[in-house]
Amino acid sequence: MESNHAIAVYFWEAKGQNPLFPRIYGHEAGGIVESVGEGVTDLKAGNHVLPVFTGECKDCAHCKSEESNMCDLLRINTDRGVMLSDGKSRFSIKGKPIYHFVGTSTFSEYTVVHVGCLAKINPLAPLDKVCVLSCGISTGLGATLNVAKPKKGSTVAVFGLGAVGLAAAEGARISGASRIIGVDLNSSRFEEAKKFGVTEFVNPKDHKKPVQEVIAELTNGGVDRSVECTGNVEGMISAFECVHDGWGVAVLVGVPHKEAVFKTHPVNFLNERTLKGTFFGNYKPRTDIPSVVEKYMNNELELEKFITHKVPFSEINKAFDYMLKGEGLRCIIHMEE
Amino acid sequence: MESNHAIAVYFWEAKGQNPLFPRIYGHEAGGIVESVGEGVTDLKAGNHVLPVFTGECKDCAHCKSEESNMCDLLRINTDRGVMLSDGKSRFSIKGKPIYHFVGTSTFSEYTVVHVGCLAKINPLAPLDKVCVLSCGISTGLGATLNVAKPKKGSTVAVFGLGAVGLAAAEGARISGASRIIGVDLNSSRFEEAKKFGVTEFVNPKDHKKPVQEVIAELTNGGVDRSVECTGNVEGMISAFECVHDGWGVAVLVGVPHKEAVFKTHPVNFLNERTLKGTFFGNYKPRTDIPSVVEKYMNNELELEKFITHKVPFSEINKAFDYMLKGEGLRCIIHMEE
Repeated sequence: MESNHAIAVYFWEAKGQNPLFPRIYGHEAGGIVESVGEGVTDLKAGNHVLPVFTGECKDCAHCKSEESNMCDLLRINTDRGVMLSDGKSRFSIKGKPIYHFVGTSTFSEYTVVHVGCLAKINPLAPLDKVCVLSCGISTGLGATLNVAKPKKGSTVAVFGLGAVGLAAAEGARISGASRIIGVDLNSSRFEEAKKFGVTEFVNPKDHKKPVQEVIAELTNGGVDRSVECTGNVEGMISAFECVHDGWGVAVLVGVPHKEAVFKTHPVNFLNERTLKGTFFGNYKPRTDIPSVVEKYMNNELELEKFITHKVPFSEINKAFDYMLKGEGLRCIIHMEE
Repeated sequence: MESNHAIAVYFWEAKGQNPLFPRIYGHEAGGIVESVGEGVTDLKAGNHVLPVFTGECKDCAHCKSEESNMCDLLRINTDRGVMLSDGKSRFSIKGKPIYHFVGTSTFSEYTVVHVGCLAKINPLAPLDKVCVLSCGISTGLGATLNVAKPKKGSTVAVFGLGAVGLAAAEGARISGASRIIGVDLNSSRFEEAKKFGVTEFVNPKDHKKPVQEVIAELTNGGVDRSVECTGNVEGMISAFECVHDGWGVAVLVGVPHKEAVFKTHPVNFLNERTLKGTFFGNYKPRTDIPSVVEKYMNNELELEKFITHKVPFSEINKAFDYMLKGEGLRCIIHMEE
């Protein structure tokens, strides 16, 4: 099972990075262990797993820290196209290597993944649903649940209402936020966003004043929490400046371009605002993702609403088309015809 | 009892603000209640108190929040020179008003202070010592204890080794930090700083590379916590960028000039660093300051080392001279000749 996602397009287009071809893309998936390599004790054939683009060695300073999930050994590396152990690829065509992608390469019926990049999950969980938890949905959800941590009854702004932002909104809904303000330049996204708990909508294009001022006026001085999922640096600044002084916390999720500069007046910090960033929602892949699957299993987390399309693997290009056109949220690609 | 402090000079020089004269300065003090006004039930004559330049009404959203100390009613207001209740001054000379200063005006044997700006403290605490807790020392101490919250054994960088920075270091010492790195442009401050737990010293002038890189090299990737007490925006940027990815927290204390802009690459946040600002060390004046006095009373907090000079009130100009020359940390001004 595989769900489609913009990161594949970014690397497929090979813009702003070292191109590495031929390569098997795909990193958001669910599967079943076919066999394990020498020394692997945590997994065995038949286990249900979610491959994750960043890993958890359980041995480095980050893995040993309660706060970090940025494993020194297995942190995402988009330049590496081979296995860590021997520096070789496990795929080939006509005797020549096909490279791996972020340790997962899931646009494939079979793949080889480092044990540190596999979350062992409940075998009763439907892989064609929970596969969406292996990247973007967990990223947005965790940004709210693990980092922003809104209290029940609080007000949360979410910048960007794509799948990651809607997952952040879903986290706010689960947390019991009383107001969830969605911010997006595309007003057509609001109707869909209501399903994810968004109660109000602000399109910055509809206002002459900066969106942080619009939000401050709507909320008697600012929101309690904000989560930025666009990666646009102006969005980041607005997301920070729209939180209430004294207690507001803004969380950055979206990845900016390389030259982006975050700028603000330091007094915005001194008035007791907090700015944090997160990577993969601060979830440790092996330790934490199984419990996110359980949130779905006990009906706390709703995943069906993120899944808007399904195609067989032979029609994978349709999945890319939906994404490129901005249609829907996640397209499930199933290996069975 | 009164301790001297740079803020008085800043307002005395009337730079960058609306001048308001004649005015009684002074805001870091300890005293005894002589009498209370109508409706005051929390205090009575004879109570020992620390006046605080910012207040706690106990009724606004900030006072009701566990996280904020930025009271809507009594938050510092440097432009106001009168009592809140009737908009009038309680001081006069030859029939003309003398204005109040930040609700305290403690360069005076008697003053009139809003009940919300008085912390009732242990009557056994020596006022000529604990008076230093009514502003800068609590600010630095609280920045570490309440906001940075270093764990035992962690590494802490403190930017600026004046009284506030040394109080931040004292907080790190109390927290059991194993390494406390002092950063200052004046190397002569290091010897004194050792008394406050500083174990290592970095003078940015001694290095060609940015101080955040120097600190990252010293600490295998960055410190666990940093506290910025200079108010220089370059110091703020360095203090943020020198914390470790994954878990590092930087806390801003120093107040920058009005045009200062904090700039950094957003990836520094996305790699799971946190930046927070604090005001008066996040202490609520009435609720929390009495317990800081108790930390001194039970020998957890050492205050004597902050007190480098004493003068009688008649020699207050000597206290200003010490401060303007950068000699010592705090000068106690006693009202008795």
